[in-house]
Amino acid sequence: MVIIMQREATPEQIQAVIEAVEESGFRAFVNPGVERKVIALLGAMDAEKVSLADRFTSMPGVERVAPISEPYKLASRQTHPDDTIVKIGRVRVGGPSLTIIAGPCSVESREQTLEVAHAVKSAGANLLRGGAFKPRTSPYAFQGLGRQALEILAQAREETGLAVVTEAVDPHDLPVVMRYADVIQIGARNMQNFRLLQRVGQCGKPVVLKRGPGCRIQDLLMAAEYIMLEGNRQVILCERGITTFEDSTRYTTDISAVPVLKRLSHLPVILDPSHSSGDWRYVTPLAKAAVAAGADGLMIEVHSNPPAALSDGPQSLEPPKFAQLMREVAKVARAVGRRMPGRRPAQ
Amino acid sequence: MVIIMQREATPEQIQAVIEAVEESGFRAFVNPGVERKVIALLGAMDAEKVSLADRFTSMPGVERVAPISEPYKLASRQTHPDDTIVKIGRVRVGGPSLTIIAGPCSVESREQTLEVAHAVKSAGANLLRGGAFKPRTSPYAFQGLGRQALEILAQAREETGLAVVTEAVDPHDLPVVMRYADVIQIGARNMQNFRLLQRVGQCGKPVVLKRGPGCRIQDLLMAAEYIMLEGNRQVILCERGITTFEDSTRYTTDISAVPVLKRLSHLPVILDPSHSSGDWRYVTPLAKAAVAAGADGLMIEVHSNPPAALSDGPQSLEPPKFAQLMREVAKVARAVGRRMPGRRPAQ
Amino acid sequence: MVIIMQREATPEQIQAVIEAVEESGFRAFVNPGVERKVIALLGAMDAEKVSLADRFTSMPGVERVAPISEPYKLASRQTHPDDTIVKIGRVRVGGPSLTIIAGPCSVESREQTLEVAHAVKSAGANLLRGGAFKPRTSPYAFQGLGRQALEILAQAREETGLAVVTEAVDPHDLPVVMRYADVIQIGARNMQNFRLLQRVGQCGKPVVLKRGPGCRIQDLLMAAEYIMLEGNRQVILCERGITTFEDSTRYTTDISAVPVLKRLSHLPVILDPSHSSGDWRYVTPLAKAAVAAGADGLMIEVHSNPPAALSDGPQSLEPPKFAQLMREVAKVARAVGRRMPGRRPAQ
Amino acid sequence: MVIIMQREATPEQIQAVIEAVEESGFRAFVNPGVERKVIALLGAMDAEKVSLADRFTSMPGVERVAPISEPYKLASRQTHPDDTIVKIGRVRVGGPSLTIIAGPCSVESREQTLEVAHAVKSAGANLLRGGAFKPRTSPYAFQGLGRQALEILAQAREETGLAVVTEAVDPHDLPVVMRYADVIQIGARNMQNFRLLQRVGQCGKPVVLKRGPGCRIQDLLMAAEYIMLEGNRQVILCERGITTFEDSTRYTTDISAVPVLKRLSHLPVILDPSHSSGDWRYVTPLAKAAVAAGADGLMIEVHSNPPAALSDGPQSLEPPKFAQLMREVAKVARAVGRRMPGRRPAQ
Repeated sequence: MVIIMQREATPEQIQAVIEAVEESGFRAFVNPGVERKVIALLGAMDAEKVSLADRFTSMPGVERVAPISEPYKLASRQTHPDDTIVKIGRVRVGGPSLTIIAGPCSVESREQTLEVAHAVKSAGANLLRGGAFKPRTSPYAFQGLGRQALEILAQAREETGLAVVTEAVDPHDLPVVMRYADVIQIGARNMQNFRLLQRVGQCGKPVVLKRGPGCRIQDLLMAAEYIMLEGNRQVILCERGITTFEDSTRYTTDISAVPVLKRLSHLPVILDPSHSSGDWRYVTPLAKAAVAAGADGLMIEVHSNPPAALSDGPQSLEPPKFAQLMREVAKVARAVGRRMPGRRPAQ
Repeated sequence: MVIIMQREATPEQIQAVIEAVEESGFRAFVNPGVERKVIALLGAMDAEKVSLADRFTSMPGVERVAPISEPYKLASRQTHPDDTIVKIGRVRVGGPSLTIIAGPCSVESREQTLEVAHAVKSAGANLLRGGAFKPRTSPYAFQGLGRQALEILAQAREETGLAVVTEAVDPHDLPVVMRYADVIQIGARNMQNFRLLQRVGQCGKPVVLKRGPGCRIQDLLMAAEYIMLEGNRQVILCERGITTFEDSTRYTTDISAVPVLKRLSHLPVILDPSHSSGDWRYVTPLAKAAVAAGADGLMIEVHSNPPAALSDGPQSLEPPKFAQLMREVAKVARAVGRRMPGRRPAQ
Repeated sequence: MVIIMQREATPEQIQAVIEAVEESGFRAFVNPGVERKVIALLGAMDAEKVSLADRFTSMPGVERVAPISEPYKLASRQTHPDDTIVKIGRVRVGGPSLTIIAGPCSVESREQTLEVAHAVKSAGANLLRGGAFKPRTSPYAFQGLGRQALEILAQAREETGLAVVTEAVDPHDLPVVMRYADVIQIGARNMQNFRLLQRVGQCGKPVVLKRGPGCRIQDLLMAAEYIMLEGNRQVILCERGITTFEDSTRYTTDISAVPVLKRLSHLPVILDPSHSSGDWRYVTPLAKAAVAAGADGLMIEVHSNPPAALSDGPQSLEPPKFAQLMREVAKVARAVGRRMPGRRPAQ
Repeated sequence: MVIIMQREATPEQIQAVIEAVEESGFRAFVNPGVERKVIALLGAMDAEKVSLADRFTSMPGVERVAPISEPYKLASRQTHPDDTIVKIGRVRVGGPSLTIIAGPCSVESREQTLEVAHAVKSAGANLLRGGAFKPRTSPYAFQGLGRQALEILAQAREETGLAVVTEAVDPHDLPVVMRYADVIQIGARNMQNFRLLQRVGQCGKPVVLKRGPGCRIQDLLMAAEYIMLEGNRQVILCERGITTFEDSTRYTTDISAVPVLKRLSHLPVILDPSHSSGDWRYVTPLAKAAVAAGADGLMIEVHSNPPAALSDGPQSLEPPKFAQLMREVAKVARAVGRRMPGRRPAQ
């Protein structure tokens, strides 16, 4: 059992709960380093549990009491049966319209970024992606233009009207990323960087949370729980491939993650076929598969000149191919009762 | 380099080639146990390769000479750019119409099988599946009714007009399975039972070859090559899930296998979402995803009373849910330019 | 619940049990194609289970009644707390002495095989391996010399006194393999070729059962159960690597399989570091690790001229390196209280 | 090609190199956020490469020029053929003596920690582990006592003389962790938290870098490269299990990682069988296997009362079992020519 305190609980209220827990014959542990205090009861738990829960629930400063057997709570559809709709300006992620996030893997230059931004806008994307801080496996690989990239993205937003999704890789960079970004992305390699999750949970901006390639679906939901427990419920889950023995694609796209996550959680689910396949030739079929399986959106890498890209060239689509993808996805979307971004419902 | 002999090459012709190989300074090895003899050249191979190939190609009894660096040849789209269409009665697998194979995991009784056969027929399936010989992980699990099941399937075919797909698990059973089945299924656990592949390659019936859960896409194509090398080109490839660390589904559906296989091979590709997910709740979204990704068909388990099924109950759909799946898949099929079975092209 | 009949149960006895099962309100299913009949009770099972078990146990022809919840029984240490010692001539697999099976991947010629056989004998191996029938991923790869290889192996046995382990890939070949081999190997790709397992279960020879690369430890024990249920308890389990995302070795050696199998089962456990790593440079460290972890033996590929090997050259050790491996393994063996083959216990 | 600048290179020197790169017809990119600047040359690279490398190498402020085709350089044995010995007080990691790091998963209380510290010291461990900041999959799980734990660990060091290994989970906490810890641990979930790696690379303390469970060996070496490129060569690599389909252990211990890492890199390699197995019953066999395979040390979880542990109880050994492990490991160490910690070489 855990006792989740209110954000504004006073130290005295927390202390009172701790004492009550210990009077009940348990050891109390309070998680350090978390904005919202969670008091865990440690020791043998038995049938008297229910009455204890009642007792703690009524104490001042307590938000709620939850059995520890549930691995995630705030992210669970059981506690929130309706779909969560994440709002980003006029974009609604998780509703009847699909969300298409597109743009270059990395912001490489002003010209490249603006060109791609206009191209994806005119093809129908409704959010712009672009990496400013890039977590790269190799320290010798291009690591992003940093703050300069953020300024370029802001200009692209101004010119196109597309809200901007970009990654934060460090709590330290978060303030500057927040100043420019509309949506904070947590990359796959940081999915279990719990401090970063907590900070992003306090930032008040919508979050795209990418699944770590070695992480189970349950781990992804636990990572979302870290963010939500800090008060941020605007979390978009993103499948982007898992590590398996199959080597014909860079990762294995876990397409089942789409219906599994939609069943277990109320949060919107998108899929990134560019990273999951690592091969532009498979991006369009996987995008169509994701929408057919019930995904709420897609994240697609687009580059004007993939062979010259500083990162992820082989998986990037050129603008005309992206426009073709959008036309094909639109047909599948209609077949499963979804609309493309910006389309009004048929009258 | 390998020299593939004609099926009707005489022992003398084979011997002459072996001698020519050894005169050229190589060791010759002839694969035993294969109908069609393949003579492998062993030893250092260098620039003179091309001229040697010419020499052997022109010898009596030689069908063709292939560099051994190509891992599969007959299954490759490079050697056969057009899609192969597998013909089963009036059914065409791999053409514009989807192929829907549906039925119970196991044939358990005449009533159950006929009931399901009529149900899937009326919902629009065009092939009937049903296990007579079941390879089961546990020796204590129900292993199929054997020959009795084959007779029941034959009756179901007669009543519904649906051709029958059923598994052969042993070269020894193949003659009796052949007598009843229209399509021979090689199950996932037998994908690398190379003797069985060779025998099925000689049987003259279309084959559904299921991917082993621990096997790479390349291994699947090599298994197809075993069948095709014996003269049987009527092979349908079936993705049915791979083993990974993810535990929310029984296997991980490798949806990328669909576009990867369609690019590498000319053979038709279907997907079995019942086995890949192990959970009926995910069968319909995965079926739609497969069709959106370009699959030529689906294999779906249907049971009138899943909780009482002798095998695979949790992943079986009841007939009304299967009919609903068919309606949903039909919309996706239309979105990707495919027809449902038995539908005429729009005029 | 399953009712396992005695091997010599008469059709009348079986029929009587079936009728008793059905009178009890269950459906009875008898596994076809199995020498020893197993009658499964199908239907809702509740508290009356215990009394029913008693009733069936006492019927003529019944060997024992087992709850179906146990996935494997004969292979379980719960039903057989003492270690099983598999006897092959004077060799005892599973006792205080280690068993070292060594030899070429494939029998390629008489000279090569005899040379390697003498070399591994003089280095201290106590069983000779050599492939006669090779299951190869590619149909163009060398598939073994077949019967000729078996004769060469027999000669090697005669000259060295080493008993011979060789693979059977097909029930059809089993009689000829049996005539020459002392131990039948079931290869990784055939671990779930259940018909072959059943036939080998009836053959009366010790079996080395290799784990399939995509199969869980529990699946391996179920495969052993298939063999044991046919009456053959002389099963040696062999870990040889599993498929994972790691690509610096051919497979990932699941070293934990050794203590896990020793805890769950009474059967002897050996490890094949040649196949699991696919790289001779890692064979010796892995061999030592296996013995340190409690393995009862090793299977090692040795070739006089690895670069010219017709199969698995890169993972084969030359005889001097094998002799060095034996010296190093001997030290580890002593450290964990085991003896090398043929060594007498210290007085 | 990348140009690695000296740590003390001036902005003017960096600018001069950038200009020289661009004059050569390439685009220059400088990694932001890295102490030591690395200038990457982007554009088509051909035969003139060698002469260019010479030109840049001789420029002021340039440390060295490396072809980008090598994925890791500083961590590679090619660039550093001798074994690196990491020095922690009088402890030498990577030399003839094994390093045994033992202690509780988490510091839970002063009494528990001191008791375990004395126990592992008297059993022969030479470094103390204990978690102060715990990255936990669930936000509801015990997350460590934080700074209070660090103080307890410092007291344990004072009482036992054992240097302390503890994890840093956030660049922000690093200064406080550094104040107390002798060795900084980077946990598996943070292996690709590249900012944290860079900060730890600047901290001047030895580092234990744990492999992420979904990361390849090459990725681990790239993560080490991030640390080393900042000037910290005192990196100890730790295998702690990878995610696979096998479910009888929590992770699959990749024992091959030991010889593979020893071959590819000069850095010391240790193994953590407690986390890799998740089951105390397998810890001792795996510890022995690791030493037999060539590991330079072990990291073992010890708890006085595992069932009451706040984290990882099932995988923790009680002190008497740990002492038994040490006795058994000592025999294996001797068999492979290694000494236990603190033992003098035999005279």
